[in-house]
Amino acid sequence: MFEARFPEALLLKKILEAIKDLVQDANFECTESGITLQAMDNAHVSLVTLLLRGEGFDLYRVDKPESLGINLNSMSKIMRCAANNDTVTVDKLEGADTVRFLFESPNADRMSEFHLKLMDIDSETLEIPESMYHAEIELPSAELRRIVSDLSTMGDSVRISVSKEGVRFTVRGDEGSGSVILRQSTGVDKPEEAIHIVMNEPVEQSFALKYLNLFCKAAPLSARAQIKLSKDAPLLVNFSMNNIGYLAYYLAPKIGDEDIEE
Amino acid sequence: MFEARFPEALLLKKILEAIKDLVQDANFECTESGITLQAMDNAHVSLVTLLLRGEGFDLYRVDKPESLGINLNSMSKIMRCAANNDTVTVDKLEGADTVRFLFESPNADRMSEFHLKLMDIDSETLEIPESMYHAEIELPSAELRRIVSDLSTMGDSVRISVSKEGVRFTVRGDEGSGSVILRQSTGVDKPEEAIHIVMNEPVEQSFALKYLNLFCKAAPLSARAQIKLSKDAPLLVNFSMNNIGYLAYYLAPKIGDEDIEE
Amino acid sequence: MFEARFPEALLLKKILEAIKDLVQDANFECTESGITLQAMDNAHVSLVTLLLRGEGFDLYRVDKPESLGINLNSMSKIMRCAANNDTVTVDKLEGADTVRFLFESPNADRMSEFHLKLMDIDSETLEIPESMYHAEIELPSAELRRIVSDLSTMGDSVRISVSKEGVRFTVRGDEGSGSVILRQSTGVDKPEEAIHIVMNEPVEQSFALKYLNLFCKAAPLSARAQIKLSKDAPLLVNFSMNNIGYLAYYLAPKIGDEDIEE
Repeated sequence: MFEARFPEALLLKKILEAIKDLVQDANFECTESGITLQAMDNAHVSLVTLLLRGEGFDLYRVDKPESLGINLNSMSKIMRCAANNDTVTVDKLEGADTVRFLFESPNADRMSEFHLKLMDIDSETLEIPESMYHAEIELPSAELRRIVSDLSTMGDSVRISVSKEGVRFTVRGDEGSGSVILRQSTGVDKPEEAIHIVMNEPVEQSFALKYLNLFCKAAPLSARAQIKLSKDAPLLVNFSMNNIGYLAYYLAPKIGDEDIEE
Repeated sequence: MFEARFPEALLLKKILEAIKDLVQDANFECTESGITLQAMDNAHVSLVTLLLRGEGFDLYRVDKPESLGINLNSMSKIMRCAANNDTVTVDKLEGADTVRFLFESPNADRMSEFHLKLMDIDSETLEIPESMYHAEIELPSAELRRIVSDLSTMGDSVRISVSKEGVRFTVRGDEGSGSVILRQSTGVDKPEEAIHIVMNEPVEQSFALKYLNLFCKAAPLSARAQIKLSKDAPLLVNFSMNNIGYLAYYLAPKIGDEDIEE
Repeated sequence: MFEARFPEALLLKKILEAIKDLVQDANFECTESGITLQAMDNAHVSLVTLLLRGEGFDLYRVDKPESLGINLNSMSKIMRCAANNDTVTVDKLEGADTVRFLFESPNADRMSEFHLKLMDIDSETLEIPESMYHAEIELPSAELRRIVSDLSTMGDSVRISVSKEGVRFTVRGDEGSGSVILRQSTGVDKPEEAIHIVMNEPVEQSFALKYLNLFCKAAPLSARAQIKLSKDAPLLVNFSMNNIGYLAYYLAPKIGDEDIEE
């Protein structure tokens, strides 16, 4: 038996919206410590990892580790049937081939129950080494989403460069070129709008804007986003969900792009 | 001469929006007591009936009963040209082949006048017998719209069952199944959110969600919706407009569906 | 060197939105006194003229008159990358083949820079004679947009007639006909909602609603719109931007339409 109760449907809705356009089917690995999901997109260019800690739930019980293979689009349809403030209980009996979603309204007038067929999904969990990143940026997630969306109107790939000047996002297209420069915040009036830049070494890499746009669908999950860059490693974009866990994305750089674009 | 003045265009706009996607052309029957409309959808599966009592108007005058054959889509376009708080006067001279819509802004600065060509529409008014329903449910119309819309993401038809447990709406689709259960409200904190269930006999029938979705376009007309079910009669979904009248829909059950879906 | 700084990106954004669907490419003529643009639509039926006075800018400098040939769609994409309250600096070095747009956030955390390729655009500036108009109407620009949009649902062209009665906008279509009548405001409660009509002589002309709809994209630029009509001249629709300048459109009447529509 596996059972987990979320205090509010909204969180789970946002998580689904942030993953389903990148990955179609994925295994939710449910163990004593919590729920994890790791999946690559169809093109195998990016990787999404989700952690939801058991202690973040109202109720969390795993008798035996379970791997729930789920079509994320179907699950998203089901989640849309929950009101944002409904409690959500997800459970599965041992041996069952479906998982149940139970939505209960705060005043208990309405209860909804959905059964979703489970799938067998081949997947192997990659061990992601803890890299030392050359540069780390923390910024409002809405700001990141805005930059990525803005620059997408002008081209397909963005070069991110971190230097003493700050962080520069550059795009080149047929009609022209553009760049956005973020500088370390000096004031501390509004800490939630602050931009923090830690640079151990200057670094510069190019990435497909298409994937960054998909990652930024996670912006509603977290007021702040973290970007970590290394010369020899994929980009990491992390959205932390307080004490509950995180949703993080990895993206391979576009090799050779720097030379072409110079 | 026929003449009717509505104090606010908004009501008429909402009525049009609630009918025009179900029925293309219909006769507005204007008699001394008020305006009625009765029409089946193209597939002859559902029936819509509208009543607007003469006393609900600011001014209402019928010298001789008139049957106004109107293309509802054209009338809807005209109604969209009225500001929500414009008064609307609809009139027709005897023998005229057009009906006039006159919109006047509250401050009388702006006046608009539209002439719509009338049509000859074959129709016979069905006598709808007053059934004894096995179960009657009254609920917020927004709640009904939400349930119908939610379940539509998973399948084409919904089974509505009323039992001691309450009312259950069930859908089965390829990806899984879902059901929403409503229970009789116990508290009376917010009477407008209450759910009232009167069951004379348990009843269970299946209906096409497509039509229920179209019926729920009437939700803006009334805060509350009534559903009435009988083993041997069409479903009735009624939206009452206070003392002005009502907009009601009838829908034939899907025969044999229960067996197939078990 | 040409350099102009706008205190807020929003104004420039609105101007682009109001022109780009009518004209693809246009020359911004930058002289000591300010920036002007004049261009005809592709079908050569309408003309748009823009004036931005130099004194309306935070900073304005023109060493030598410059003609900046710009693809308005590309410029609009760039402008969308500015936050509404960013300052915008537009500059171009002498001989350069690109123009630069520099966006700076109020707190100086974020700076964006875009380079747009300039184009050679053939154009000759028409001398527009100052006509004596037979009738002038001033009304809320939202009201004008609404009338034009409403009537577009019923037909392709509108006849505007100014008489003692007021201003009448009439449309005829296959399904029926409609007209909106505006009368001179009598009260002065809300001057921003007032309708002023000056008629030197009755006048009546027909215009393509398609163009009027495009002109009304300028409504966000100005709370008030002015319409000027003459028997022998194009219609003028003017949106005044306080002390900064104006955006005005000219539209040739549909010849012969009056007779056909009678």
